[in-house]
Amino acid sequence: MKVKKAYETLKLKDPVKLDSGKYINLCEIAYKTFGKLNKNKSNAILVCHALSGDQYCTGINPITNKKGWWNILIGPGKVIDTNIFFVICCNVLGGCMGSTGPSSINPKTQKPYGLMFPVITISDMVRVQEKLVSSLGIKKLFAVIGGSMGGMQVLEWATKFNKKINAAIPIATSYRHSAQNIAFHEIGRQAIMADLSWNKGNYYKNKTNPKGGLSVARMIAHITYLSETALQRKFGRNLQNSDFFSFNFDTDFQIESYLKHQGSSFVQRFDANSYLYITKAMDYFDLSVKKGGLPKVFKNTNVKFCFFTFTSDWLFPTSETKIIIKSLNSSNSMVSFVEVKTDKGHDAFLLDEPEFHATLRGFIEGQIIQQRI
Amino acid sequence: MKVKKAYETLKLKDPVKLDSGKYINLCEIAYKTFGKLNKNKSNAILVCHALSGDQYCTGINPITNKKGWWNILIGPGKVIDTNIFFVICCNVLGGCMGSTGPSSINPKTQKPYGLMFPVITISDMVRVQEKLVSSLGIKKLFAVIGGSMGGMQVLEWATKFNKKINAAIPIATSYRHSAQNIAFHEIGRQAIMADLSWNKGNYYKNKTNPKGGLSVARMIAHITYLSETALQRKFGRNLQNSDFFSFNFDTDFQIESYLKHQGSSFVQRFDANSYLYITKAMDYFDLSVKKGGLPKVFKNTNVKFCFFTFTSDWLFPTSETKIIIKSLNSSNSMVSFVEVKTDKGHDAFLLDEPEFHATLRGFIEGQIIQQRI
Repeated sequence: MKVKKAYETLKLKDPVKLDSGKYINLCEIAYKTFGKLNKNKSNAILVCHALSGDQYCTGINPITNKKGWWNILIGPGKVIDTNIFFVICCNVLGGCMGSTGPSSINPKTQKPYGLMFPVITISDMVRVQEKLVSSLGIKKLFAVIGGSMGGMQVLEWATKFNKKINAAIPIATSYRHSAQNIAFHEIGRQAIMADLSWNKGNYYKNKTNPKGGLSVARMIAHITYLSETALQRKFGRNLQNSDFFSFNFDTDFQIESYLKHQGSSFVQRFDANSYLYITKAMDYFDLSVKKGGLPKVFKNTNVKFCFFTFTSDWLFPTSETKIIIKSLNSSNSMVSFVEVKTDKGHDAFLLDEPEFHATLRGFIEGQIIQQRI
Repeated sequence: MKVKKAYETLKLKDPVKLDSGKYINLCEIAYKTFGKLNKNKSNAILVCHALSGDQYCTGINPITNKKGWWNILIGPGKVIDTNIFFVICCNVLGGCMGSTGPSSINPKTQKPYGLMFPVITISDMVRVQEKLVSSLGIKKLFAVIGGSMGGMQVLEWATKFNKKINAAIPIATSYRHSAQNIAFHEIGRQAIMADLSWNKGNYYKNKTNPKGGLSVARMIAHITYLSETALQRKFGRNLQNSDFFSFNFDTDFQIESYLKHQGSSFVQRFDANSYLYITKAMDYFDLSVKKGGLPKVFKNTNVKFCFFTFTSDWLFPTSETKIIIKSLNSSNSMVSFVEVKTDKGHDAFLLDEPEFHATLRGFIEGQIIQQRI
C-alpha cells in the first residue's frame, strides 16, 4: 500500500531573496490544508505556528501521533470552522518539518546545510508564506491568525502584505522581542552550542543530534510558557516518587520530572539547528524599527485587527500589545482587543480558554457577515 | 615574603551528622571576620551568603580582586559598622571557597569527593555555622543577616537556634523554594550534567571543569536575579558591535554579551559540583513542613525580625515573605517588614538601595540601644 504523504510541498523555482541579502535556491514549503477553498477563494485562513509548532495545526500529527497543536480551535464546527473555511498551515522557513531549513540538503554541496544555512527573519518566513498563498490562487486571505511567534508573522503580514489580508488576529505576541526574551533565547542557544555533539552544526552525518543541549534549551523556554501560579498549583513542591527526599541528583520533585519529559520528548521531534535559526528570527523581530517607527507602520491600513493577550503571560505581557494598539488607534485603524483573565501563562493561547474562544468566534462571525463569504 | 592566608579555617574534630543521616568527617569551615569582638562578646553579626557568594563579604576578594559582595553595606562607618560590630562570614558547607564541599579531599579515598559528597540542606549549613560561632566563644549573636539563600539560613537560625540569636534579618528570601524556583535550578543542574566534561562529577583529576554547562546554569540563574524592567532599561534591544544585525550566531545584542560575560566569569571562580549541591539544598528548603507547619515554627520566639523584600523581585516575591509575616504576627512575635520599591529585581539586595539601607540602619541602631552593646 502506498502511504499518502502527510503534507503537501510547494517547490519555489525562483531563488528566495532574504533580509540578510542572501538567497535560498530551490526553497520548499511544507504545508497542510483543511476544509475546501470556495469558488471565490475568499474563505482562506492562514494559520501561523509558534517556535516549536508545525503544519499539523489540527487533526492528528503523524510524527507524534497526538492531536494537532490547535486542534481545540480548528476543525468542523469549531471556532475556526473547516466546514466554512479553507485553513492553510505551513512549516516555517528554517523549520524541520519539511520546509527548507538547516537540516535540508544544500543544493550546492548536496549535504545538509548546517550553519551554511542563511540566518532568516520573521519577514523571510512571511515572504515565502505569501508565495504559497499566491500559488493556491488566493488573492486575499480572509484572515491570518497565530500566537506567539505565529502572532509576529501575523503582524508582519499586516505590514508587508496588508492589501492581501482582510483580518489579522495576533495572539499572545509583541511587536518586538524584549531584552528578557532575547536573554532566554540566547541561553537556549548557548546550551545547544555548548553540547559537544552539536559539532558546530555538523551533526547530521553522524546522527549525533545534540540532545542534551536542545533538551536544556526546551526546558528553559518551557518555564517561560507557564505562569508561576500555574506551576505552583499544578506541581507545587510535590515529590515524584516518595514521601522523602532522595538526597541524590535524580528526580525529587514532580516539576523536575515534568520538565525533563518536556525536554526529552522535544528532542525526538525537533532539529537543534532549526531551534537556533528560529529563535534568532524571533530575536531580530522589531516592527518599531520599520518605516519610521511603530506609529507609521500600520498607517492607512484596511486590515481588521483582533488582538488577544493573557493576564498571566509574562513572556508577552499585555503591556507590549497595548503599545501596538495605541499606534493602531492613533492611525484610526479597526482594532479589537481582549485581555483574557487566566493563570495559565503564555501557553493559554493553546489551551481551553472559553473567553478567548468565544470572543474569537464572535470576531470571525462578524467578519463572515461583513465579507459575505 | 610569606603570604598571609586569605581566610581562617575551623577544623571540626567530631563528624557532622547531616539531615540525610550521613556524616562528614574532618569537616572544615572557611571564614573571615571583620572588626573586633567586644569583651561581652555581644557585638557579633553573622553574615550568610547567597548561592554564588563566599566569605569575602567586604574588603577585597582575593580571588576576583574585586570588592566583597556586600562591601556597600559592611565596613567602618557603614550600615553594618565594623567599628562597632564583629562580623563573621563563612563559606557554606558544600561550597568551593575553603569549606568542605564536593571538590574537597574525601578522607576515606584521599581523592576529591565529587558525587560521593553527601547531599546537604540549609539546615546542615546552619548546623556547622553554629559550631563556628560557638568556637569563637559567642553565646548569642547580635544578629544574623543574609539575602536570598543567605535569608534562608537566617530563617533556619531563627528556628533551630533561636535562643542563640538576638535579631534575624532575612532579605529577599522565602520560607520555601517555589515550583518555579526549583524549575530554574533543575535546568541549571541539567545543563551541568549534560556537559560531557562533567563526567558524573569526576572532573577534578583531569581539570576538566564543565565550563559550558556551568556557564549556561549561571546565565539561566542570572536572568532570574534581574527584573524585566531593569533588563529593558539597561540593555533593551541595543546592539553590541554595530548598527546592523550580524546574521550569524555570534553576539548581536548587548544583553547576550552581558550574559555570556556573567557565565564565563563565574566558571573561573566556582565549582560545578558545588553548584549542584547548593542549588539542591535551596530546593529542599521548606520551613512549612517543620514542626507541624509554619504557624508553629516560630512560636514563643524572642527573636526580633526585620524582613526586607523588593517590589520587582520575581524570584522571591513579597507575597512569599508576607506568608511568614502572617505566621509570626499570629504568634505575637516582634516583626518589622519593609517592601522596598525598586525595579532592580532580586539583585537589589546587593545594590545601592537607599530605602533598604536606611531602614536597616534604623533597625540595627534600635537593637544597639535595646541590647546595650
